[in-house]
Amino acid sequence: MPHTSLIAITRRAASVGLFLLAIVGAPAGVMAQAAAPGSDPLPSWNDGPARQAILDFVKTTTDQANASFVPQSERIATFDQDGTLWVEHPIYSQVIYCLDRVPAVVAKKPELGSVEPFKPVMSGNRDAIAKLSMKDLEKILVVTLTGMSVGDFNADVSRWITTAKHPKFGRLYTELVYQPMLELLTYLRANGYKTYIATGGGQDFVRVYSERVYGIPPEQVVGSAGGTSFGYDKDGKPFLTKDPKLLLNDDKAGKPEGIHLIIGRRPNAAFGNSSGDRQMLEYATAGDGARLGMLVLHDDAEREFAYGPARGLPQTKIGTFPQALVDEAKKKGWTVISMKKDWKRVFAFEK
Amino acid sequence: MPHTSLIAITRRAASVGLFLLAIVGAPAGVMAQAAAPGSDPLPSWNDGPARQAILDFVKTTTDQANASFVPQSERIATFDQDGTLWVEHPIYSQVIYCLDRVPAVVAKKPELGSVEPFKPVMSGNRDAIAKLSMKDLEKILVVTLTGMSVGDFNADVSRWITTAKHPKFGRLYTELVYQPMLELLTYLRANGYKTYIATGGGQDFVRVYSERVYGIPPEQVVGSAGGTSFGYDKDGKPFLTKDPKLLLNDDKAGKPEGIHLIIGRRPNAAFGNSSGDRQMLEYATAGDGARLGMLVLHDDAEREFAYGPARGLPQTKIGTFPQALVDEAKKKGWTVISMKKDWKRVFAFEK
Repeated sequence: MPHTSLIAITRRAASVGLFLLAIVGAPAGVMAQAAAPGSDPLPSWNDGPARQAILDFVKTTTDQANASFVPQSERIATFDQDGTLWVEHPIYSQVIYCLDRVPAVVAKKPELGSVEPFKPVMSGNRDAIAKLSMKDLEKILVVTLTGMSVGDFNADVSRWITTAKHPKFGRLYTELVYQPMLELLTYLRANGYKTYIATGGGQDFVRVYSERVYGIPPEQVVGSAGGTSFGYDKDGKPFLTKDPKLLLNDDKAGKPEGIHLIIGRRPNAAFGNSSGDRQMLEYATAGDGARLGMLVLHDDAEREFAYGPARGLPQTKIGTFPQALVDEAKKKGWTVISMKKDWKRVFAFEK
Repeated sequence: MPHTSLIAITRRAASVGLFLLAIVGAPAGVMAQAAAPGSDPLPSWNDGPARQAILDFVKTTTDQANASFVPQSERIATFDQDGTLWVEHPIYSQVIYCLDRVPAVVAKKPELGSVEPFKPVMSGNRDAIAKLSMKDLEKILVVTLTGMSVGDFNADVSRWITTAKHPKFGRLYTELVYQPMLELLTYLRANGYKTYIATGGGQDFVRVYSERVYGIPPEQVVGSAGGTSFGYDKDGKPFLTKDPKLLLNDDKAGKPEGIHLIIGRRPNAAFGNSSGDRQMLEYATAGDGARLGMLVLHDDAEREFAYGPARGLPQTKIGTFPQALVDEAKKKGWTVISMKKDWKRVFAFEK
């Protein structure tokens, strides 16, 4: 069975109830902005161990007199995206993108419209869509994420990301970035850290909007990636076509492997929110000197979502945070960020 | 047949006469330095079309009033390494590294010492080594470049690169970087360009010394790359092992593909010296606005080497520069750099 560049996502999305969300034709919204510079670099963080761990890490690693000083060129911080930088529930935005793309694919290949698994997606029947198997979803991801030129793909994602809205919040996905994490990204960069995304999602997908939304340029996005093929159009102009060949499954053990492939150094700090980020945190924090490992715990059903199952939170299929991860965090000195307690506000649009 | 991370190199090295060079136990030499800042950013370049093309490109793309202005965050320049930034003749330094590593591998796996192709390498018999087939060389690359931890590999390359010397010049390979190209790298960076290496050589190999030698950090090196496997040592400490699985053959069409994988944007400028760089230059210069494509022609037998076969230079197996490439350069507005005419000096150690 051929691998695809999004098996990583498929695996995580499998058996989660799926929704085909309506595309709301709203104009592009105002993107969440990083906190303005001022005396407090982390205004959306409450005082507490999480905020303190960040301040201590930066102070230690940027102080030339400290034994853990890190030269500026070597300062690397890696961030998971889904559930760490923006909302991942009820389902990864990229999976919604793929479902939304099915009609355009069927318009070009009408024969697909009458066969599984494309027929139920075309019908818009939510119950039928929710019953799609992992194998079905994989087929959808392959046809919606490969076979087109890189340029066409980028243009389509650019359009989608400025129109599609989240079912709970009714806002663009790009508005659902966590304000405290934007402040953290800005704070680290202001202190000489190169900030990277290391996502199980598609590298090409996230690169389309990462600079605008997170201030992270495309070349600093590591993600699940397929191959491309170089070729020429009818006018002899070269272009790249996205292939259904998986090069990097950037989840779990694939995260440190992907970080090595794209970055080539061990991060000094790593941030995640689930079992998929465990190996990345292990890898980052096993290095010499001061290290920072942090995990966002979604324990705020009111402002966002609550899921675990650590600390008795409801277990879900996305962003699993088992008690074993809390235990490992304690043992290894990683900090668990309580969204409820540590974050003064979650989103920029609050009040 | 399993692919390896260095088939790219093997292919290019095949049927070239091979030498097993003596490791000279000299202390690490002084590394070539970029030109000091001053009124002339390119002091090692003679006046002429090559130098002018560089100055014009930088002026055009950094002038906000110009239609071809490129925002600083989008300025990307990619450089081939072997034959473009440093000497590639008579054979790629990384192949020498692999041959030099054979005794260490045989010490750990004595059974290899008595079988082909390791036996002739162990004997040090130059004639026998020169007769190694492509398949033989591939076997040598696999056992010398994979199977160890990333940390051990980096340490070994670090040691080798500060001791091994070039047969013609009797100097460290890292002294054999082209001074005009170092000035060009510095000049582009001073004008907001992110400089990248895009090499057919091993990504992990070049990343070990790229920052020290070229001022290019490891995360800005794209090269032929194998996979790694995440695991734990006996103390539970995580580490990565280099696998004999090719992810990226960064040569010819693989160069734009690799650039897309690692960088994710089309370069504004690209520099090479052979048919292996053709697709990279095509890709870079097919974009909108002002573009710069340059090819180093090795026409200076006195100061370095002379090979082509363009313009009647001797044809060799490494760094092939056919007339068709000169023709394409002319048609597409790329500049051919004559080492003999355009470079005032080739190496920092001259005079």
